[in-house]
Amino acid sequence: MSETTDLSRAPEAMIADMGRRARSAAGRVAALPPGAKPKALVAAARALRDAAPEILAANEEDMAQARTAGLSAALLDRLMLDEERVANMAAGVDAIAALPDPAGTLIEETERPNGLKLSRVRVPIGVIGIIYESRPNVTADAAALCVMAGNAVILRGGSEAARSNRAIHAAFVRGLEEAGVPTDLVQLVQTTDRAAVGAMLTADGAIDLIVPRGGKSLVARVQNEAKVPILAHLDGINHVYVHASADPKMAAAIVVNAKLRRTGVCGAMETLLIDCDYPASAELLRALTDGGCEVRGDAAARAIDPAIATADAADWDTEYLEAIASVAIVDGVDAAIAHIAAHGSHHTDAIVAEDEAVANRFLATVDSAIVLWNASTQFADGGEFGLGGEIGIATGRLHARGPVALEGLTTYKWVGRGTGQVRP
Amino acid sequence: MSETTDLSRAPEAMIADMGRRARSAAGRVAALPPGAKPKALVAAARALRDAAPEILAANEEDMAQARTAGLSAALLDRLMLDEERVANMAAGVDAIAALPDPAGTLIEETERPNGLKLSRVRVPIGVIGIIYESRPNVTADAAALCVMAGNAVILRGGSEAARSNRAIHAAFVRGLEEAGVPTDLVQLVQTTDRAAVGAMLTADGAIDLIVPRGGKSLVARVQNEAKVPILAHLDGINHVYVHASADPKMAAAIVVNAKLRRTGVCGAMETLLIDCDYPASAELLRALTDGGCEVRGDAAARAIDPAIATADAADWDTEYLEAIASVAIVDGVDAAIAHIAAHGSHHTDAIVAEDEAVANRFLATVDSAIVLWNASTQFADGGEFGLGGEIGIATGRLHARGPVALEGLTTYKWVGRGTGQVRP
Repeated sequence: MSETTDLSRAPEAMIADMGRRARSAAGRVAALPPGAKPKALVAAARALRDAAPEILAANEEDMAQARTAGLSAALLDRLMLDEERVANMAAGVDAIAALPDPAGTLIEETERPNGLKLSRVRVPIGVIGIIYESRPNVTADAAALCVMAGNAVILRGGSEAARSNRAIHAAFVRGLEEAGVPTDLVQLVQTTDRAAVGAMLTADGAIDLIVPRGGKSLVARVQNEAKVPILAHLDGINHVYVHASADPKMAAAIVVNAKLRRTGVCGAMETLLIDCDYPASAELLRALTDGGCEVRGDAAARAIDPAIATADAADWDTEYLEAIASVAIVDGVDAAIAHIAAHGSHHTDAIVAEDEAVANRFLATVDSAIVLWNASTQFADGGEFGLGGEIGIATGRLHARGPVALEGLTTYKWVGRGTGQVRP
Repeated sequence: MSETTDLSRAPEAMIADMGRRARSAAGRVAALPPGAKPKALVAAARALRDAAPEILAANEEDMAQARTAGLSAALLDRLMLDEERVANMAAGVDAIAALPDPAGTLIEETERPNGLKLSRVRVPIGVIGIIYESRPNVTADAAALCVMAGNAVILRGGSEAARSNRAIHAAFVRGLEEAGVPTDLVQLVQTTDRAAVGAMLTADGAIDLIVPRGGKSLVARVQNEAKVPILAHLDGINHVYVHASADPKMAAAIVVNAKLRRTGVCGAMETLLIDCDYPASAELLRALTDGGCEVRGDAAARAIDPAIATADAADWDTEYLEAIASVAIVDGVDAAIAHIAAHGSHHTDAIVAEDEAVANRFLATVDSAIVLWNASTQFADGGEFGLGGEIGIATGRLHARGPVALEGLTTYKWVGRGTGQVRP
């Protein structure tokens, strides 16, 4: 059975109590004057800057323990804070404070024949849970996005970053307090007991939405155990399809960027689909290998360039997150769409083509959160989409898809204004 | 343990297979020409009219069995079909066919500084599961809404209506077939084995969203067992707050309508909150009792009218769905808001007031899917909201709140159109 079954009452009672305080704080935020939320975030950013020495000292302790525990260089880099990273974290909070407040905005307005005026108005979701791993900057970043949308947030970071997270949280809350905003808006789970994660995942009623931020095993655990709704993506098995009509220079630039700009991000291309009628296949494969990418092809791709490795069945379903790409030769846009339907993860898929009808067919039919025409998959990012940041990228089908930022952290209510209408 | 644990493989395999066929059919719908969906629904409505004799014969068998089983008069009435009800069912399908198609509509469009044109476009959710009880008209109604939004649907009706549902489903699918639309778009779970419900609830990946339609025990089971996201409401513990500034004639008309127009609907008022400064409390209570309503009051209400019964603690949390109302006297709008926060079910709550500032405070602060000012709670209905019907009313916080119709049966995708943009 899962861990949640073995929970002592303690973590569940703790999360329930945090949830109650979060709900109460969120309710009080609704009554604050306009401008209170950005003001509080600016104060939080200032408090983060002021607390840089404490934050860096706490981080040094986390780093020392992580080195002793033998964490990989990549994990140590994610955990590490320096003055510049603290400054960037504070600047990120300031940037979120400058975004338009989504709460209270009007989605639509109608008047019914009986004179009842109906509107749909954006409101905060309520209590958001964030479960994340080593990066301590998520503490400030996620808190700022949740607060700006009017939500309360319960943060649960990785145990390896516990001291850093506590120092960042303490500073953030100091800023809220100075601004006269309820400090229970931003709560940090202080225990490193993993059972607390299980308690959050089953706290339906206390927590309205959970966003996991981290590696695949964290997201998989959250998806398996959660009773609370979640927004997440497990994989980014993203495709670029190069159509016969593609401009070869553009195709090579997009494919190389999509695969190699950063190989570890969820928007990176993992599989290249080349149309069998595309005239510059050999050059395209060479552009990848010249860029330092290992290419694993199907038989048709290997016929074009015998030097590349052979892809096996598992390659089409693999998110490498490395300088490796699988390549298949496909016969027409519908074959590309079928390959993506069979192997994709509904994250981000792109077509390179000059033929607009073919591109529109791809954009309409590929069932992914993000579909792109003549652009790199690496644009899959809330900042690049103009959202001012992101709490994560969602590949589920409900509530919000793709990059989720302030709007995705809201819901709506129906408001009806009448003059005494009764229903006949 | 729950029933799902004891499932034989059979129901799970059956639902998985239905899900695969549904997904495939939904994919083919995306490629149909515009107008194909409404045309198919008009054909389905015609087929329902043509099949009226078979549907009524099947319903007569269900009714005979239900009478033998001793079902209540209310349940028998829900199950019963006659010529008029079949005609209304077909007319309902025609009405849904006349609604604007939500799929493909543009939500927003921007151009990024790098020239990338980004839009968010409505798309169908995919595969919807509907789990419902005795009313056989849901078979046609839910199928029509799901298909109009471009989804495939897996229907699981109550065992008492099995023959009626099969006849309605057979006719509906005949219509789809005549119109050249994949018949797997509308599938009916043919077995009355309750394990099939458990298999639907845990079919995440195969079914994208489940909407339960029925009584509280069905909805509670679905909420407890579902791994698939659901849209539902468990309770409609709705309040009307009559402020001191309320117009007495309007207050009485709204309260009587909210409680007594139909007592069995989820939008009915269950608790009346009267401000202690409202000058016409006695008349208001009398209007309810004169209308045939049993009134259960707190001490202050009983001081106004000693003839009314005493409310106990459970009354404030009870959805009567009968001609019974609980009444509390509250001191000001904030006390009303606090009562609703403590006892409401986030469904529909109304204020009667002439004071606009007080009304706005109520509308902004009460955390319900629907909040109304000077209008009856019985307007909580997709048809009354101009949505052309509803698949249900949702009191959760994500994706869709309040009456859910075509738009709530869609999601969106991000579509980016570039000219070769790569990310720096």
